[in-house]
Amino acid sequence: MSPTIAILAPGAMGSAVARRLSENGARVLTSLKGRSEQTAKRAAEAGMIAAEDADVAGCDIILSIVPPGEAVALAERLAAVIVRREKKPLVVDCNAVNVDTVLGIEEIIGSAQAPFVDAGIIGFPPQPGAKGPAFYVSGEHAKDLAVLKELGLDLRIVEGPVGAASALKMSYAGIVKGLAGIGSAMVLAATKAGASDALRDELALSQPAILARLSTALPDMIPKTYRWVAEMREIAGFLGPDHPASQIYEGFARWFEHLASDAKGDAVDAELLKAFAAKSEKREV
Amino acid sequence: MSPTIAILAPGAMGSAVARRLSENGARVLTSLKGRSEQTAKRAAEAGMIAAEDADVAGCDIILSIVPPGEAVALAERLAAVIVRREKKPLVVDCNAVNVDTVLGIEEIIGSAQAPFVDAGIIGFPPQPGAKGPAFYVSGEHAKDLAVLKELGLDLRIVEGPVGAASALKMSYAGIVKGLAGIGSAMVLAATKAGASDALRDELALSQPAILARLSTALPDMIPKTYRWVAEMREIAGFLGPDHPASQIYEGFARWFEHLASDAKGDAVDAELLKAFAAKSEKREV
Repeated sequence: MSPTIAILAPGAMGSAVARRLSENGARVLTSLKGRSEQTAKRAAEAGMIAAEDADVAGCDIILSIVPPGEAVALAERLAAVIVRREKKPLVVDCNAVNVDTVLGIEEIIGSAQAPFVDAGIIGFPPQPGAKGPAFYVSGEHAKDLAVLKELGLDLRIVEGPVGAASALKMSYAGIVKGLAGIGSAMVLAATKAGASDALRDELALSQPAILARLSTALPDMIPKTYRWVAEMREIAGFLGPDHPASQIYEGFARWFEHLASDAKGDAVDAELLKAFAAKSEKREV
Repeated sequence: MSPTIAILAPGAMGSAVARRLSENGARVLTSLKGRSEQTAKRAAEAGMIAAEDADVAGCDIILSIVPPGEAVALAERLAAVIVRREKKPLVVDCNAVNVDTVLGIEEIIGSAQAPFVDAGIIGFPPQPGAKGPAFYVSGEHAKDLAVLKELGLDLRIVEGPVGAASALKMSYAGIVKGLAGIGSAMVLAATKAGASDALRDELALSQPAILARLSTALPDMIPKTYRWVAEMREIAGFLGPDHPASQIYEGFARWFEHLASDAKGDAVDAELLKAFAAKSEKREV
């Protein structure tokens, strides 16, 4: 029999994961406590069943998929209801949080005597017909999630303890989103100094793979930078406050804050980034 | 008749440029004032002729090729001797300095009534048989350097005023060396958290071009990071102190300082970076 799975919260990623699982036969619960009507509608469309926290605690598996800043509070809320149940659910933290944070969450869930798995999601929310995103999982209970593979998720086990999957997610995002960060900063500075065409030409000549990546990443990042701010602070925390590279990621947080406010406002920088990428694509043809 | 060219200083880049120019028929002067015997030997081997500053000022073209922190002092030293000559040399600043710095240097050279060109060198010192590096030049006198192309340099005119070539150099280095910076920081953090194999696998799958770039860049950067520290501070200055992205480049300066001291010391991080790159190359085969 298919397991009962709870996914909190029913955001863009959470509801798309729920849709894939329910389409493959899983019963998927969620909590709509304090959520908007729009979210309730999205959850229902994804095949999710609204439930009280006590019922969430009675599921076989609980996936926590929330913005990084809400991960600890959700773990505490779950632990408070799980502690009262005899049969414990397997709790999976899928959030872009740093290793220390996920170790803290493991402790919170452990205080309710429930098994815990660390997970990191890499890629876009599940789309019909596409395989991704990748669900990297680590920790001694990671193998108990094999059922999620049968239910259509691209599950990949990282050999290592709780923390290894989050470390992978942090380091991967630190490279890919970091490249978007330096690329956007330098393209804008070159454009304002009248050197953007020369920069594009030199990259095309000596670093064509980087130019191709930036041509995709620069327009794609614009509506996402507001979410990347907290993720960059998590990466700085992953390195630790005294780490000689943590300032780089504090800097990215500040830069993405600027780009997010530009995108919400007059979008001057957003338009310049799109223009650079559009010209780059043209020359690739 | 071939022009007389002065190149200061006869460092690794300066003497390699001199060799190419002298092999193609140019008479190349340099100053050995205060330089070591080893440098004097390297200069002689590159076909350079030792000269006093007064003779340097009498050349047709002067190329300034020094570490970024020495560019302004050299300009002042040159202006002091050029001001006394009736026939003025064309002075070219080839250094990795920010736009404000090169505008200041233009003013210093202008105070001696000499024409000035902004240049940025992208690539390794000239090697026998290879075309590079690229000499990007900008400003109204850039076209007067066409003779350097005939003498074997890969000269490329950037349309734009003094500052455009330096902006290109800054933004290009900010992307390429920045990627090495984030890549090295994240690969080391992933390795220490036991997630380096998973990181390599995920990059190979979803970002193969970035993995290929890091496999080359991570071992290559180790002996160079000590020079990149000042260059990262120039890029922070290029953005300006109040720019929302300048902290990223201050962060890179600090990170490269750490990697430089690691490389000079027990090289723990250097070995981990080499190990990651070696495994990546293996899987590409």
